[in-house]
Amino acid sequence: MTKTRLEAFSDAVIAIVMTIMVLEMKVPHGSDLATLEPLIPVFLAYVLSFVYLGIYWNNHHHMMHAVRRVNGRVLWANLLLLFWLSLIPFATGWMGENHFAAMPTLVYGVVLLGCAISYSILQLKLVRHHHGENDMLKKAVGSDLKGKISLVLYVIGIAAAAFVPTISHVLYVVVALIWIIPDRRIERFYEELEGEHNKN
Amino acid sequence: MTKTRLEAFSDAVIAIVMTIMVLEMKVPHGSDLATLEPLIPVFLAYVLSFVYLGIYWNNHHHMMHAVRRVNGRVLWANLLLLFWLSLIPFATGWMGENHFAAMPTLVYGVVLLGCAISYSILQLKLVRHHHGENDMLKKAVGSDLKGKISLVLYVIGIAAAAFVPTISHVLYVVVALIWIIPDRRIERFYEELEGEHNKN
Amino acid sequence: MTKTRLEAFSDAVIAIVMTIMVLEMKVPHGSDLATLEPLIPVFLAYVLSFVYLGIYWNNHHHMMHAVRRVNGRVLWANLLLLFWLSLIPFATGWMGENHFAAMPTLVYGVVLLGCAISYSILQLKLVRHHHGENDMLKKAVGSDLKGKISLVLYVIGIAAAAFVPTISHVLYVVVALIWIIPDRRIERFYEELEGEHNKN
Amino acid sequence: MTKTRLEAFSDAVIAIVMTIMVLEMKVPHGSDLATLEPLIPVFLAYVLSFVYLGIYWNNHHHMMHAVRRVNGRVLWANLLLLFWLSLIPFATGWMGENHFAAMPTLVYGVVLLGCAISYSILQLKLVRHHHGENDMLKKAVGSDLKGKISLVLYVIGIAAAAFVPTISHVLYVVVALIWIIPDRRIERFYEELEGEHNKN
Repeated sequence: MTKTRLEAFSDAVIAIVMTIMVLEMKVPHGSDLATLEPLIPVFLAYVLSFVYLGIYWNNHHHMMHAVRRVNGRVLWANLLLLFWLSLIPFATGWMGENHFAAMPTLVYGVVLLGCAISYSILQLKLVRHHHGENDMLKKAVGSDLKGKISLVLYVIGIAAAAFVPTISHVLYVVVALIWIIPDRRIERFYEELEGEHNKN
Repeated sequence: MTKTRLEAFSDAVIAIVMTIMVLEMKVPHGSDLATLEPLIPVFLAYVLSFVYLGIYWNNHHHMMHAVRRVNGRVLWANLLLLFWLSLIPFATGWMGENHFAAMPTLVYGVVLLGCAISYSILQLKLVRHHHGENDMLKKAVGSDLKGKISLVLYVIGIAAAAFVPTISHVLYVVVALIWIIPDRRIERFYEELEGEHNKN
Repeated sequence: MTKTRLEAFSDAVIAIVMTIMVLEMKVPHGSDLATLEPLIPVFLAYVLSFVYLGIYWNNHHHMMHAVRRVNGRVLWANLLLLFWLSLIPFATGWMGENHFAAMPTLVYGVVLLGCAISYSILQLKLVRHHHGENDMLKKAVGSDLKGKISLVLYVIGIAAAAFVPTISHVLYVVVALIWIIPDRRIERFYEELEGEHNKN
Repeated sequence: MTKTRLEAFSDAVIAIVMTIMVLEMKVPHGSDLATLEPLIPVFLAYVLSFVYLGIYWNNHHHMMHAVRRVNGRVLWANLLLLFWLSLIPFATGWMGENHFAAMPTLVYGVVLLGCAISYSILQLKLVRHHHGENDMLKKAVGSDLKGKISLVLYVIGIAAAAFVPTISHVLYVVVALIWIIPDRRIERFYEELEGEHNKN
C-alpha cells in the first residue's frame, strides 16, 4: 500500500487543526485596541500550539519521507496521532481563555503527552514494519533521544501544573525549542545520503 | 477518468468532518477540572465517531486501491457516502450533549446506517464498473459478510434505542470493533498478491 | 504551469464549503425528536446545496481532465468560481433558517447565478487558452446548452422569488436535476475517445 | 526533500483560511433584505481578504513551481507565512464588524505586513537555498520591486489608520491591484522559457 494517501490525509487534518484554533480567538465587539487585551493569552496559546503543530507536521514529513509502504497497523497508529492532535484546539482554547491557569495547563500538557506518545508508537510501528529492509528510516529516527527527553519534560510539566503552572509553561516552550533544531540534524543526514547517492 | 481526484476530495471531506466534530466540544468557562465533567459524554461520542470515520477512511483507502478508473456513477455514489459522513458531527454532538439519550441515539444509528448503506452502494457500483476486468477488487470485497452483519446490528441498534439505548451503544461499539479487524484480512490478501507479483 | 495544484486547491475549497454548511445545522438543546423539527428546512436547504456543490465538483473534475496546462487568467477565473461557491453556506443557512422565505430564496438564486456565470467564464478562458491545440476540451464543453438553460432558469427563479418563491425552489431543483445527467453524456464522449485511442 | 507535501499543506491551509472567513458572516435572524445591511462591511472586508489570499496562493504557486527541493529552513519560513495568513480571518472579521474603524484597520494592516514580510523571508530562503543551481527562480523573483513597494504602502497604511483610515483602505486595495498584474509578467517569462526549451 502506498503512503501517498496517508500523507495527504495527515496534511489535511493537521492543516484543519491549525486553522480551526483561530476560531477560538473570537472577534471582540469594541473597536478599541483595548478590546484585544483579553485575547493576548488566547493568542499566545495559539502561537505555542501552532509551533507544536508545525513541528509535528515537519517531523511527520521527514519520517514518512524515509518510508515507502505502509500497512494497516501504521494507518491506525497514524489515526491515533491525528486524534490527539485534534484535541489541541480544545486544550489551547481552554488554557488561553483561562489565562494559563493551573488545571487547563495540566490538561494541555496531557494532550501534548498524548501526541508525543502516539508519535512514538507510529515511529515504532514504522521501524518494525520496515525491519531489515530500510536502514534509512532507522538512521533517521536514531536513538530518538529528543523524543525521550520530551516525554520526561511533559510529565514534569503535568505534575508541576497544579502547583506552579509557570514551570509547566516554561517546559512546554523548552520542548518546542528542542524540536525546532533536530530537523537540521536529520536533514544533514539526508543531504549526506543524497551526496553519496549522487557520487555513485 | 483517474481516481486521484476522487481520493483527494474524499480525504479532504473526511478530514474536515473528523476535525469539525471537535468544535462541538465547546471550551467551558471555568478553569476547574469539574467544568470538564459535562463534556465527558461529548468526548466519548467524539471518540466513537472518530473511530468510525477512521474505519471509513481506511476501508475507502483499501477499496479504491484496487480500482484504476472511475465513472460518473461512482462519483455520485461516493458523494452520497460523503453526504452521510458529513451528518456524523451533528448526530455526534446531539447524542453527546444529551448524554446518550434515547432519540439522539436512534438518530445516530440512522446516520451510521445511512453511511453503511451508501458505502455498500459505492462498493457495488465499483464492482459492477470493473466487472470482468478486475478480479482484484472482487476478491478484496469478498462476500462482504462484515458489511451485512453491520447493517443488521445497526437496525437492531436503531430499534432498541427507543427502549434500552444502552443496547444500541453496545452494538455501535461492537460494529466498530468488527471493522477494525478486517483491514488485516484484506491486507494479508494484498501482501499475498504482491508476493505472487514479485515471484513472476 | 501544471494543473495539479489548481485541482488540489479547488478540491480543498469545495470540500470545506460542503462540510462547513453542516455547522449551520446547530445541535438543538432538547433530546426529543420534536426538537429536530425546526431543523427540517435547514436540512433540506443543506441537501440542495450539497447536490449543487457535488455537481460543480463533478463538472470541474471533468473539464479540468481535458486540460493540460493553465495560465494566470485561468487561475483567477477559478478563484472567482471558488469565491461564489464560498457564499453558498451563508445563502443556504439564511434560506433554511427562514423556511425558504422570499428574500433569502432570491439571494440564494443570485449566489447560484454567480456560481454559474463564473463557471462559464472559467470554461471560456480554458477553451480560449487551449484554442487550436485542444479539440478534446471543445468537444467536451460542446454548445453548453445546459449551461445556457441554467442561466435562464436562475434568472426566472430570482425574478419569481419576490412573488411566488415556490416557483424559484422548483426551478433550483430542476437545474440541479438537469446537471446530474450531462456527466454521463460527457463520459460517453470520453469512453468513445478512449475506445478510439485503444484501437490505434 | 521534495516540495509536493509543502505545496499540498500550504494549499490546504490557504483553502481553509479562505473558507473559514465566511463563518464571520453570521446568518442574520430576519428574512428581509434589510437584515443583510449590517453585513455589507463584513462582506466587503471578506472580498478584500479573499483577493489577498488568492494573490498569495497564486504567487506561492508560481514561486514553488521554479523550485525543485526544499530544506528545513524553507519549511519553517513557509510555516511562518501560513501563521500570518491564518490571522487574516480574525483581522477581517474585526475590521468588517466595526465598519472599517481606525484600530481594526491598523491591525488589518499589521497582519498584511506580517504576511508580506514572511513571504519575502520565504523567497529569500528559497533563492539562497538554490543559489548557483537555479537561475530560473532568481529570474522569476527578479528585483521584487512590487514586493518592496507593497511593504512601503502597508507601512504608510498602518501609520495613516489612526488618523484617516480611508487612506489605509485605499492603499490596501492599491497593493492588491498591483499584485493581480505581475502574475502575467512572470508567466510571460515562463512561456518564453518553455518556448526556448521546446526549440532545443
